[in-house]
Amino acid sequence: MANTTLLDKIDSPEDLRKLSQEQLPQVCSEVRDFLIQSLSENPGHFASSMGAVEITVALHYVFNTPYDRIVWDVGHQAYGHKLLTGRRDKFSTNRKFGGLSGFPNPSESEYDTFAAGHASNSISAALGMAIASELNQDSPRRNVVAVIGDASIGGGLAFEGINNAANSKNNLLIILNDNNMSIDRNVGSLNSYLGKITTSKGYNRLRHRAYTSLKRHNLISEKLRGKLLRFNNSVKSLLSSQQNIFEGLNVRYFGPFDGHDLNRIIKVLREIKDMEGPRILHLCTVKGKGYEPAEKDPASWHAPGKFDPKTGERKVSDPTGKPLKYQDVFGKTLLELAQNNDKIVGITAAMPSGTSMNIVQEAMPDRVFDVGISEGHAVTFAGGLAKDGLRPYCAIYSSFLQRAFDQVIHDVALQHLPVTFCIDRAGLVGEDGATHHGVYDLAYLRAIPGVIVSAPRNEHWLRNLLYTSQCDNYGPFAIRYPRGNGRNPQWQNEMQKVEIGRGEKLSEGSDVVVLSLGPIADEVQVAISKAKEENISVAHYDMVFLKPLDEKIMQEVAEKNCPIITVEDGSKIGGLSSAVMEWLNANGYKAQVTSIGVPDEFVSQGSLSELYHYCAMDSDAIYQQIINAKK
Amino acid sequence: MANTTLLDKIDSPEDLRKLSQEQLPQVCSEVRDFLIQSLSENPGHFASSMGAVEITVALHYVFNTPYDRIVWDVGHQAYGHKLLTGRRDKFSTNRKFGGLSGFPNPSESEYDTFAAGHASNSISAALGMAIASELNQDSPRRNVVAVIGDASIGGGLAFEGINNAANSKNNLLIILNDNNMSIDRNVGSLNSYLGKITTSKGYNRLRHRAYTSLKRHNLISEKLRGKLLRFNNSVKSLLSSQQNIFEGLNVRYFGPFDGHDLNRIIKVLREIKDMEGPRILHLCTVKGKGYEPAEKDPASWHAPGKFDPKTGERKVSDPTGKPLKYQDVFGKTLLELAQNNDKIVGITAAMPSGTSMNIVQEAMPDRVFDVGISEGHAVTFAGGLAKDGLRPYCAIYSSFLQRAFDQVIHDVALQHLPVTFCIDRAGLVGEDGATHHGVYDLAYLRAIPGVIVSAPRNEHWLRNLLYTSQCDNYGPFAIRYPRGNGRNPQWQNEMQKVEIGRGEKLSEGSDVVVLSLGPIADEVQVAISKAKEENISVAHYDMVFLKPLDEKIMQEVAEKNCPIITVEDGSKIGGLSSAVMEWLNANGYKAQVTSIGVPDEFVSQGSLSELYHYCAMDSDAIYQQIINAKK
Repeated sequence: MANTTLLDKIDSPEDLRKLSQEQLPQVCSEVRDFLIQSLSENPGHFASSMGAVEITVALHYVFNTPYDRIVWDVGHQAYGHKLLTGRRDKFSTNRKFGGLSGFPNPSESEYDTFAAGHASNSISAALGMAIASELNQDSPRRNVVAVIGDASIGGGLAFEGINNAANSKNNLLIILNDNNMSIDRNVGSLNSYLGKITTSKGYNRLRHRAYTSLKRHNLISEKLRGKLLRFNNSVKSLLSSQQNIFEGLNVRYFGPFDGHDLNRIIKVLREIKDMEGPRILHLCTVKGKGYEPAEKDPASWHAPGKFDPKTGERKVSDPTGKPLKYQDVFGKTLLELAQNNDKIVGITAAMPSGTSMNIVQEAMPDRVFDVGISEGHAVTFAGGLAKDGLRPYCAIYSSFLQRAFDQVIHDVALQHLPVTFCIDRAGLVGEDGATHHGVYDLAYLRAIPGVIVSAPRNEHWLRNLLYTSQCDNYGPFAIRYPRGNGRNPQWQNEMQKVEIGRGEKLSEGSDVVVLSLGPIADEVQVAISKAKEENISVAHYDMVFLKPLDEKIMQEVAEKNCPIITVEDGSKIGGLSSAVMEWLNANGYKAQVTSIGVPDEFVSQGSLSELYHYCAMDSDAIYQQIINAKK
Repeated sequence: MANTTLLDKIDSPEDLRKLSQEQLPQVCSEVRDFLIQSLSENPGHFASSMGAVEITVALHYVFNTPYDRIVWDVGHQAYGHKLLTGRRDKFSTNRKFGGLSGFPNPSESEYDTFAAGHASNSISAALGMAIASELNQDSPRRNVVAVIGDASIGGGLAFEGINNAANSKNNLLIILNDNNMSIDRNVGSLNSYLGKITTSKGYNRLRHRAYTSLKRHNLISEKLRGKLLRFNNSVKSLLSSQQNIFEGLNVRYFGPFDGHDLNRIIKVLREIKDMEGPRILHLCTVKGKGYEPAEKDPASWHAPGKFDPKTGERKVSDPTGKPLKYQDVFGKTLLELAQNNDKIVGITAAMPSGTSMNIVQEAMPDRVFDVGISEGHAVTFAGGLAKDGLRPYCAIYSSFLQRAFDQVIHDVALQHLPVTFCIDRAGLVGEDGATHHGVYDLAYLRAIPGVIVSAPRNEHWLRNLLYTSQCDNYGPFAIRYPRGNGRNPQWQNEMQKVEIGRGEKLSEGSDVVVLSLGPIADEVQVAISKAKEENISVAHYDMVFLKPLDEKIMQEVAEKNCPIITVEDGSKIGGLSSAVMEWLNANGYKAQVTSIGVPDEFVSQGSLSELYHYCAMDSDAIYQQIINAKK
């Protein structure tokens, strides 16, 4: 086991603040050892938190948390923060059902100030807190710190936050944790700009030293400081071919500094802590710091799964004979299609490996666009590409596509442009929990005119739908599929064009009808077999298309005049069940419809089978509803 | 009538390009005269298009439209473009039912390359087109130009576009039409930054002249140019305390130049037209240019209504005795509430006067935050404010709130934060048309756990709901109300706390039940009176809350065992009718439900009564459905 002598006594940041500054490197080392040990057994996000250990320790050491606020962006980086804020003992339950959330979660701890599953929100949220502190004049002012990575700061939401930071009085501190990585390698001009700043480190240090020395001797006023800063920037600009974007936006810039030099970080934080106005502190870190295998290959170690802490050998299970991930079926299929259709291009928003778009990217680098954490841009950009004759395949996780809802409506659907939305991680996603479940897409896409909304039941259907979407100009075409492995090692069928809005009958029956959408059909099949033993005859249809709904199936089903059960891996509100009820009503039928799906609450993390059980969406629950319906 | 000798002969940009450059100022003047004459009679967006006349003429003169692409952002600026691209004769139908759209509209003209109702999308869309041109190597390269205002460029989507512009080979040209105005005065650090650049105009001109002179004499290569540019920027930075943000993001910057100096614009456009890589050309214009009253008060002249073209007197109808706009009832009520509750703060995204948030802003400037065109930030920022004890009232148009869908889920609802969403322009909006109808909010908000979704029937209910939302911590609380005037000059009732999820019975009846949401109750009342003459007895309930749905009313209604008609000013998919069907099914009732609402298509512009009629939502249509249901 790891040596955690000091860490064992830190039950809150209060305890940390009682230590001497000399003891802190030991704390950092123990936090790392603890993370390595714990995450080697109970997998989670690894490399980001390893890189943020010094930042975490310094922040809790210098600031009076939880009164002072730390707002973590995304929160992959926040495991160290969890360990130092009273959750060390529970950390073995990280990402488990009923355990700790893998992200900062305000309902879990007062130290977790804001939800942090979707990138780029920290600056806006922290600005709100900083301004709330200004307005609440009966309480002492709090310090508010947003900690944001170099990938997240490229998102439009972060820019909006920076652009508004100087509008009102506040003392927001933004810490840019710059490890030059997204989950994959980072992209975008802002990122290369940050890289350029970093190479002029020496000059920045000099500048900072000059300033703090002047300040220490009371030789500089805030007003004078502003002038000095501008002069400095000009000289810097001249020397290094650099300008400072942040200062152009009225946010004072400090850095870049080594984000693993604990003493320096503490010193700088103390110096700039009580300055007025929004500031950005640029700290350069190494993703995976302190664990060599992760430092060498940070992308693979973003979330490495189980591993041997001593050797760094990752315990990747042998894939031989196992079904591929849906993502890989998607990637390989898209490559196959792109090889035959030169109009096809791929778009990913910072998730080339997560979505397996990297399969196409590696073969056709000029035809895949990784736009970084910019889902809105990804969709509008796809609209522009489609407008001028290309066939963009936009692969975005369901919960992140929420960021581009308006763009889907305004920049694609309104113009009926042929963009295929490959909606990854649709439905419950498991261990990533509430922020990542992709359970609203059916509801929000169905309301948009002219959008085809489909969900393959298995790999063959996924391939057929991808194939079909490029056969003609159907306008926007959404194909949603889940996280994780498929069911069939023989995934590579010969692709066929399918009819839009045509589902498939999977079993005949006369007592109860089940209409399902997506791979959850498998749970239905198990339930039906069980019901058969009770002599209940269940008809089962895979709708395939939520929109347009298969009217032929609906007609056939309605005329059976028996109870209908809808089953979908998405919110019960607004999706398949609503579509079925709407059709029945519009066509004068009065069948009883029972809806199985994700209930109207935020569902937390757990394994998929735990969550299916919790949501009463597993085969047992479906079986029970079949029995109830038959009564 | 205006003198339009030259304009009369321009049926397409081809005709324009046949003119000599000397004739163009005359064309500009005629375009302005035409706009003044036409818009004085048939109201529309005025000041933006007046300011963009020279830019418009220069673009169509220099570029080979429609093969070359002009992508207008928002499109308030694009009336001149409509006149020059074959729509002069139809311009009197602008914004009318069956007439021209008030925004660029690809289904109207091949010169309108992309939808342009929601701000900040032009750069991403144009980048898509520019890259499509690179990839389509069998066609000659096209030039692609995005024309974006200084307010729109502050939106996160525009930043994402700029941040990605240099990632791939393309020759996108961004024209920044900088009139230092949003619809109201512009905000944000980027805006003040643009202001500062503008004041260093002299230097920029010098720099540009030096460069073009070197280029003319073939004294500069592209590579050398880059170095010169960096050197220039450094010197500039030193001289003017400026850095150039755009060049920091790898987008070459040219300007600022006078956006009304036609010869200069044409010259610069020709010079930079064929350069490689993304470029931004900064042109300073005057909103309302060429019409003195509009130049003096551009905010009022953004969309002035009818006016006397000679005197500039606006024909504002006398408001005495007339009901207030819902917006003003909102603004005045929020001020009243804020005077008694010091936790209340207001947020608007560039629409202080549109939403009437300016009423609070003028009285309490420190408690209202205009964040510019940044709906995502507005909502996350509200989440931060709410997290630390304040009560934010976030007033955003329904169709623009689509931009913040994810933020509503992730940054507010997930944390159950008490943010009140004052959803303005909900339902059909009339003349602004398809991009602006607020018809999806009911569907997308209803799917989010824990969000209260309400719609006042009249001013008193609006006040009561606003009052109620600050009485307790209810979590996210949406109140949607329409564009335009209310019904009751006596709007100022004494506010009462209402019960969450409790509707109101408006009339008793036993043949048919109508459940409605929002002010469309008035149409229902007319229909019911008419039905009464036919001896049909109709029960009518105003649900007030879409979520939670009034279960007591639902129980009462279901037990009547008669046909139900739902009436809502929103998409028929996913809103009230779906909620009612879901409730009936979940509770074992089988009433026939007829859904009245906006059909599943993009509805274009027209007067509200025309659109209500078109959508079969007016009293006649409701009456007809009552008759049908009774049969």
